[in-house]
Formats: sequence, structure tokens, C-alpha cells
Amino acid sequence: MPDPRFFTASGPFSAAELAERSGANLAGDGTRSIAGVAALDAAGPADLAFFDHPRYRAQVAATGAGAIAIRAKHRELAPKGAVLLFSNNPHRTFALVAALLYPEPRPEGGVAAAVHVDATARIGAGCTIEPGAVIRAHAEIGKGCFIGANASIGRGVVLGEGCRVGVGASISHAVIGANVNLYPGVRIGQDGFGFVPDAKGHIRVPQLGRVVIHDGVEVGANTTIDRGSGPDTVIGPGCWIDNLVHIGHNVRLGRGCIVAGLCGIAGSTTLGDFVAMGGQVGIAGHLTIGSGVQIAGGSGVIRDVLPGQTVGGYPAVPIRAWHRQTASLRKMARLAADAAKEE
Amino acid sequence: MPDPRFFTASGPFSAAELAERSGANLAGDGTRSIAGVAALDAAGPADLAFFDHPRYRAQVAATGAGAIAIRAKHRELAPKGAVLLFSNNPHRTFALVAALLYPEPRPEGGVAAAVHVDATARIGAGCTIEPGAVIRAHAEIGKGCFIGANASIGRGVVLGEGCRVGVGASISHAVIGANVNLYPGVRIGQDGFGFVPDAKGHIRVPQLGRVVIHDGVEVGANTTIDRGSGPDTVIGPGCWIDNLVHIGHNVRLGRGCIVAGLCGIAGSTTLGDFVAMGGQVGIAGHLTIGSGVQIAGGSGVIRDVLPGQTVGGYPAVPIRAWHRQTASLRKMARLAADAAKEE
Amino acid sequence: MPDPRFFTASGPFSAAELAERSGANLAGDGTRSIAGVAALDAAGPADLAFFDHPRYRAQVAATGAGAIAIRAKHRELAPKGAVLLFSNNPHRTFALVAALLYPEPRPEGGVAAAVHVDATARIGAGCTIEPGAVIRAHAEIGKGCFIGANASIGRGVVLGEGCRVGVGASISHAVIGANVNLYPGVRIGQDGFGFVPDAKGHIRVPQLGRVVIHDGVEVGANTTIDRGSGPDTVIGPGCWIDNLVHIGHNVRLGRGCIVAGLCGIAGSTTLGDFVAMGGQVGIAGHLTIGSGVQIAGGSGVIRDVLPGQTVGGYPAVPIRAWHRQTASLRKMARLAADAAKEE
Repeated sequence: MPDPRFFTASGPFSAAELAERSGANLAGDGTRSIAGVAALDAAGPADLAFFDHPRYRAQVAATGAGAIAIRAKHRELAPKGAVLLFSNNPHRTFALVAALLYPEPRPEGGVAAAVHVDATARIGAGCTIEPGAVIRAHAEIGKGCFIGANASIGRGVVLGEGCRVGVGASISHAVIGANVNLYPGVRIGQDGFGFVPDAKGHIRVPQLGRVVIHDGVEVGANTTIDRGSGPDTVIGPGCWIDNLVHIGHNVRLGRGCIVAGLCGIAGSTTLGDFVAMGGQVGIAGHLTIGSGVQIAGGSGVIRDVLPGQTVGGYPAVPIRAWHRQTASLRKMARLAADAAKEE
Repeated sequence: MPDPRFFTASGPFSAAELAERSGANLAGDGTRSIAGVAALDAAGPADLAFFDHPRYRAQVAATGAGAIAIRAKHRELAPKGAVLLFSNNPHRTFALVAALLYPEPRPEGGVAAAVHVDATARIGAGCTIEPGAVIRAHAEIGKGCFIGANASIGRGVVLGEGCRVGVGASISHAVIGANVNLYPGVRIGQDGFGFVPDAKGHIRVPQLGRVVIHDGVEVGANTTIDRGSGPDTVIGPGCWIDNLVHIGHNVRLGRGCIVAGLCGIAGSTTLGDFVAMGGQVGIAGHLTIGSGVQIAGGSGVIRDVLPGQTVGGYPAVPIRAWHRQTASLRKMARLAADAAKEE
Repeated sequence: MPDPRFFTASGPFSAAELAERSGANLAGDGTRSIAGVAALDAAGPADLAFFDHPRYRAQVAATGAGAIAIRAKHRELAPKGAVLLFSNNPHRTFALVAALLYPEPRPEGGVAAAVHVDATARIGAGCTIEPGAVIRAHAEIGKGCFIGANASIGRGVVLGEGCRVGVGASISHAVIGANVNLYPGVRIGQDGFGFVPDAKGHIRVPQLGRVVIHDGVEVGANTTIDRGSGPDTVIGPGCWIDNLVHIGHNVRLGRGCIVAGLCGIAGSTTLGDFVAMGGQVGIAGHLTIGSGVQIAGGSGVIRDVLPGQTVGGYPAVPIRAWHRQTASLRKMARLAADAAKEE
């Protein structure tokens, strides 16, 4: 059960109400009282769990969960007594129910005394601004934003409604949509890495673009997104970016891209929609990565990738070719070891 | 000699006193006055150096150090006049003596005027809280903690005695033991990277776990540790984590693990005790890495690793297999080059 | 055109004046009025563009730019009407003109009310110190420095003239030259990763060195540079370091090194002058990397590299050998695939 020091339960609710509010179909006792969520092997009679992968077949059979989000076609796998919430995406149902039972706490609203808001900044209704935050001239903060302690909003920056700026984050030279969630320590809008190499001292190229972040984007802790050099750096709607990611100047991400921790995307590279990058992936500059591309963790991408491809390796190649490469290499090393033994 | 602007010497001490307080056995003139520490090739008559590797045999023979921490069996390698401090771990002796001669400055104590401490937070005796720090409702700070400037302690967070929270660090949803050292810019307890992919917009999975950090852990600058999704993220006692490391939700580290800079550990992976990871290692999610495993820098681990193994490569394999792989690859490339020349 | 919310134009200027001030030779109508800069394919009659690579031959022929920075030998490639600024380094000319047209805004000067400056700190004339900044005892800040909001300057730290310390950055145990630019979230001078492994608890080795940063260095957002363990960590004049880079204790960089995002340099490694590292490169500890070495992105360097070499791969080898390795591996995997089909 979530630690009550950190999470506040809003339930319990009846299983029927949770089904209705999460868009699932109910089978079983709709009056059952559900107060929490848990994994199949940890859930009790007041919890909802979910089942969506054959790997967990034994766990679902043995679960003590009071309710289970499950596909209708899997109903026979669940224990008899459990209430079932049918949907095509049980994990989604689980997430929606969890959000109903443990809603994110609303910021308490109000502007702390010890903030530094320029007289020309515009602050929307219902914003929470924590102590030590700095909001500079001509910034525009939409309604209902949360600006964490000691965060910094630069001159002229625009934030849409419902954004969260984490503790200690900083933003400059940026236009940001609605419901964008910047985690603590995020750095948005600083100079891109632009210079002309010169033996007498590399010469700075003024970085005259912006960062444009569309609605519903998540940016993980301590991630950095540099502003464009002339064009903008653009993060498309609904992208999810994890912690400690570096996004260089003029990079463009389409809609719904997923970027795991410690990835780096070098300058002027363009990603289509719904590109998914595993952790620690590097993409070189000036490349085009098509929509739907998936990139295995740790890969180094040095060429364009066509839409829909899955790639892996360093340098990255189509994933099956990479698997053949690693298999060949293992075999070759084994042969060398055997030969060494025979000598 | 350490720059007195930054370090305050507490000595000199007699060699005999340093030997006693560091648990070493003395040989030679115990009255010799030792004021500092240095490497063999830089040490003078008032310095302690140490010798523990045959590679430095020439250096120890020529050193000007007034005292040397050394194994008794190596005593003949040292110059005649030097005072010797015998121990089974001369580097350890050196570290202990250095800490005696240059003790970490005690925070001056006291709570700055410009801090933001909620009325319900409990602050132990002897804490130092620097300007701009924010401590939220129901937080509990143990005795003798140091909370750096502009750091943020979230609602309900628990810190044991003697912790240090670096400048600008942020902590939420966490229960932290004693003598934990969080370096500047550390991010603890933010949401894990949890969502259900959805073409209409990925759906957040509420992250309802915590971060639990046991006693004596070090967490390097700008490192991020996400809270669990339901289970906790757990860092075992005495782990040392370097800078810019990313630790995902539900990860569990055992006792005394060593994680070098820029490593990433993906969600729900478990490490045993005393696992050692070189720099920039990536470990995929949902894996089990046994106790005592060592992982070469830059490796990408995509399978479970049995206790005691040493692995390397991308994807990682037993270290000897990796060495054979790279040797085979070098040989193959050389043959190809030769063939190209003959044509 | 740069967004006027974020950038303030100082022009327009005549082409003749821009040529003179950037050290270029003029051909064409020197009275033409130039107000901005843009890429060849985006520039209009009041913009300067530049041409320096045959790849953009078609773009320069078709450009609408009013002025073009170009080598004299390429003059025939430009459209007839354009004013030309000849130089041996057109990108450099472009950068200098851009800096004339869009000069970096001068900090407004003055020390905010809500700063925390110790009485013993010395602050040079013309410094700007934003709210929430903390400057500790005996720190010395040169003339004309900018200290961003909520930044922290440690006891005794020295900053030369004209430095910028980004929002939320922290510095301790460091001596920093003139015109050094630390981006937001930078961490300078914290303890290096130094300990003696011990099953009862790893033992801290006191880190008694400093960070020394020479003139004109750039350090990217959220990058970390640890102080030395006894020797110093040294960053040579004019180095450019990108975001999220980790530099370990005792590392020494020569003059003008270029370090791209997410690189890690392990302890006690020395780089010569003008070493260039692509993104996500790792260099193991205690190595020597010669002057002029270039390292391909994603490489893992585990051996010394002689001056002037270009290396790549994991582990890194001379770049041509790496290319042969990857070609051999691709070929071998293809043969394996063909063989599998025939069976």
C-alpha cells in the first residue's frame, strides 16, 4: 500500500464505479470495494491488479486481487472470485484506476512571499509559485501552472496552462505548450554547442533560435534541451523524455516520441512521430529518423533510418543484422578459444 | 600541499600518533612530525605517502616522504630513513591519516534566516540549513544534517542523522538513512518513467512507491534516482554512486555497490551486494545481477549475470569472451586490409 | 528572424561596415543594409548567409541572401546581385557578423536584494548577482561577472573577470580564469569518486585538490567536474565542453579541447591540446591522449592514444581499423544469413 506520508488515497470506490470511470466492462460483483492497486503477486482483496502477458499466467491464477483488469478473452485465467474489468488494454485500465485512487495532489495554489516576479511578467489564475522561484520580464505563465522552488523562468518565456516546472529547473528562450511537465533540474533553452573551431580560440556562433515544446510533453530530471541556432529546437506533442537526456540545437522530435535515460541527440537531427529510443542511445547530427523507428538501448546511430525500422548496435544496423553480427562474433571467438586449446 | 583557501590542516601529528589512530604498526622514529599527505613522487619530509603496487617500486625507492604506509613484507623497498606505517591495506591507512590531517569542516551549525521550513517539519539538533533551502510539511531531518543552499526536501521525507544534502539537490517521496551524502544537484524521488504507450497520448502510470536509501550511501553530482512505481527503489547500505548516473524505478541495489559516472540502470533491475560498474555501463530493465559481479566500463548488459562473474562488451559477455571477440575482430579486419592490398 | 521576445537586434548595418568589423573583404554594393543572419535557403535581402561547402552549391546559387560570406575562389558560385564578404573562413565571418547584429545582452548590473553574500567575499565592479545566489566567505569575484539566480559560490573560490555562472550552478574548491562561461546546473569542485573498497564500508579518501579552469572555457548545462584528490583537475584555456559531461578527479585537459555531450573522462587521464571528442565517448582512467586526437562519438577509449590520431569503436582503435572491423562484421553476418537460407 502506498506510504501515506507521500500519497493520499481518494477511495475506496466500488468496482462498478471504477469500471465505468475507466471505460472498462465489468464482470462479477460490482459492489466490491477497491481502495488500491498492486501487482498480481502483491495484491489483496481491496486491490486492483492487471494481467496482460502470458508470462504472468501462473501469477494471475494465484492472485489474491479483489479486482483484475484483463482482456475478455483471458477471463478463464483469472481466479473465480475476482471481479474483472475487461478492456483491450488492461495496463491502460490499471493506470486510469490508479490515477482515480491516488490522484496527483493539486498544488495548494498561491504565490509564496519569497519569489522574484518581474512586474511585467503575466501570471495566470490559480498558479502555485514556490519560494525562491524567479520569473523574469515579459514571461507569460498560463493558468494553473506549478513553478517549483528555486526554479527560473527567463525573459519572455511562454508557458501554457497546467504546466509543472520542477524544483530548481531553468527555462530560457522557450515557448512551451499546455500540460508540459518539466522535472526537477531540467535545463531548457541555453546556448547550443555552436562554434567555429579556431586555434586562437574557438569562436562562438550566436544561437538565435528557441526551444518550442508542444502540449503534453514530459521532460525527465536533469535533462537538457538546447535552443536552436537560428531554426528552433522542437519537441512534438506528447513526447516522453526520461532523465539525463541531452537534446542538441535544431533537433526536431515529432509526436509521441519516447526517449529513455542518458540518450543524446546531436544537433539538427529530425525524428518523425512515435520514435522509441532505449537507454543510452546516441544519434549523430544532421540525420533523419523516420516515424515509428525503434532503437535498441546503447545503440549509436550514424545514418538515416527509414520509417518503421528497428535498429540496434554500434554503429546501428537493422536489428536482425545486429543479432547476426553478435552471434557471428560469439561463434568466432569460441572457435578461436577452441583452436588455442588444441595447440 | 592542499590550498589553505579550501582545506584546513589539523596537524601536524607525530608519526606514532597517526599510526595509533589509523590502526597501523610503526617502524622507525615515532616522533617525526607529519603534516600532510602526498603521492610518493611529490611527498616531502613532513608528508605521508603510501605504497601498495609493484608498479611504483622505483618511486618508493626514491621517495622523499617522511612516512610511508606500506605492507610489512615490502619494508625493504622503502628508503632507509623513512618512518613506516605497516598495515594490510596501505591505501586505507593513507585515507585514514589524510582524514585525520584534513578533517572535513564541520558545518557551522544554525539555520539561515532565509530558509523556508514548514511549521510541521521536524529538524534535529545541530543541523545546518543554508539560505534558500525549502523543507516541506512533515519532513523529518535527523540530528546534525547539512542542507545546502537552495536544496529542496519534499513533504514527509525522512533523513537520518548526519546526512548531507548538497547545494541545489532535491528529494521527494524518500526515506533516507544515516550519514548519507547527496552531492549538489542530485534528484531523488521524482516520478519513474512509467506510462502506457498510446497513439492518442501516452498514459501516465501513477508512481506510488518511494526511494529508500540505507546508511552511508554516496550519491554523486546531478545523479537521478526515480521513485518506485508501487514497489520501492532501494539503495543498499554503503553504496557509492558517482555523478550523472540514472537509476530507474523499482531498481534495487544491495550492499556496497559501486556505480561509476554516467551509468544507467533501467527499471526493476536488481543488483546483489558489492556489484561494481565501470563508467557509462547500461543495464536493461527487469534483470538480476548477482553479488560480486564486475562490469567493464561502457558495457551494455541485456541478460542476467550470475554472482561473481566479470562481464564486458555490448552486449555484455564474460570478460574473457569479450577479449577474444575484440581480438578476433581486430584479426579479421587486418586480414581484410591485407587482402585489399594484394588485389 | 530571431524572436524579438528573446533577441534584440542592434542593426541594420551597411554591408561595408560589417565587412570591415568582421575583417572580411567586400565585393559589391557596400551600402546594402543588412539586419540579420540566416541559412542560405532561408535568407532574404536584408540577411547575411555563408557558403563554405560544395554540398551547398545549389543552395548558394539559388539563395535570396542580400550578402554572402564566401571564399574569394568561390565567388562565381554566388548569384550576381549578392554582396560578397570574402574571407578564408566564411563560417567565422558569419559568426562574427551574427554577434555584431545580435550582441549578447549585457547583464543589467547590480546586486539583487535577496542574495546572500558573505561579508568577507570580494565582488568586483559591475557584477550582476541575481536573487537567491549565495557567495561564501573569502570568495573573490572579478569585474563584470554574472552570477545567476540561486547559484552557489563556495568558500575561497576565485572567479576572473567577465565570467558567467548559470542559474542554479554550484562551484566549490575552484580557481577560475577570465571569461569562463558555466551554463545552468553545472557542478564544479565537489569530491572526486575516491575511496578504498572495503567490505565493512568503502573508506573515503579525502579529496584535497582543486579544480583549475583557465580563461575562455565553456562548460555545458548540468556538466560535472570533480576536484582533484591531491593534484588538481585542470581545464585548459579555451576548451568547449558540452552538456551532461562528467570529468573525474585529476583529469587534465590542454588548450582548446572540444568535448561533446554525455562524454565521461575517468580520473587522472590527461588530454593534450585540441583533442576533439564526439558525443558519449568514454575514456578510462590514467590514460594519456595526445594533442590533436579525434575520437568518434560513442567510442570507449581504454589505451593511450598518440598525438594526431583519429580513433573510434569500443574498444577504440584507429578509425580506419574500426571501419574495417564494422565492414568485416557486416560481411560475416551477411554470409551467415545466406548460409542459413541455403540450409
